[in-house]
Amino acid sequence: MALSLYDLSVSVFTRGLGQLAHLLDKGLAHAQAHDIDTATLVGARLAPDMFTLAGQVQSASDASKLGAARLAGITAPSFPDTETTYEELQARVAKTLDFLKTVERSQIDGFETRDVVVKNRRGEMHFTAERYLLQFALPNFFFHVTTAYGVLRHSGVPVGKMDYLGTF
Amino acid sequence: MALSLYDLSVSVFTRGLGQLAHLLDKGLAHAQAHDIDTATLVGARLAPDMFTLAGQVQSASDASKLGAARLAGITAPSFPDTETTYEELQARVAKTLDFLKTVERSQIDGFETRDVVVKNRRGEMHFTAERYLLQFALPNFFFHVTTAYGVLRHSGVPVGKMDYLGTF
Repeated sequence: MALSLYDLSVSVFTRGLGQLAHLLDKGLAHAQAHDIDTATLVGARLAPDMFTLAGQVQSASDASKLGAARLAGITAPSFPDTETTYEELQARVAKTLDFLKTVERSQIDGFETRDVVVKNRRGEMHFTAERYLLQFALPNFFFHVTTAYGVLRHSGVPVGKMDYLGTF
Repeated sequence: MALSLYDLSVSVFTRGLGQLAHLLDKGLAHAQAHDIDTATLVGARLAPDMFTLAGQVQSASDASKLGAARLAGITAPSFPDTETTYEELQARVAKTLDFLKTVERSQIDGFETRDVVVKNRRGEMHFTAERYLLQFALPNFFFHVTTAYGVLRHSGVPVGKMDYLGTF
């Protein structure tokens, strides 16, 4: 027995986005309880040249959406980064989860050696599907979910590690 | 073909700790270049009730050390959280990497259904090795490496995403 690429990608992303939605729910409840404008949370960040909470949520969405699509050899839907309100960020997470539901196990499992090409401003990076997931997609996804957590926590939202990890 | 539990755990932890060491090196260079006392970095944190950089590094060490040991069915070495200097934190990462080198592929691969028990203040959590890795050990490990990154970045250290992800 060994592990399935689908379980390691779509299932992990789905769980992680569920926890991100939970963290955002806690942020909203905190804002409402303390008369904090949610726009303050949306624009909060850990350093002046880092992404805001909005950017972290959009990046977590992209990391999982593109991660699953590249492994499946399909084109991910375009989600322009137009969210400006807290509710729109929550909707971004929800529609990313909806997309992940459409990715089939049969599109991913068995394709561990599929070519994956990531283009960025530095040029093209070439991976096998397995190496892409382990060295790029998973670390990148958890980076943005964790940084969203860090921004909320830094903003005074009472979240703890189990809000990030989830229930067992 | 499917993915190996060892590649997903020891290899991922080893790469991630290597990037954590690289991030700490950049933090030290920044402190030296700007006459910042490294004790300021060691004690920096994102929120008053979060772990400091020291706590994040110790936790990333524990997450990977315990993660690998639990999957291998062995007892991890005890690394008391006694580090108080920047150099000691760097040494903590190095000795965690040394331990990971001693864990053999044959101790982990094929044991996806091994019982893993995690004890914390809430009681005991029971997992299979696979579920433990995907739902607990990996998210937890990346949480602490990313939060160490966030603390350094919040402290003005010029690190970027590729310093976290590594080279390809």
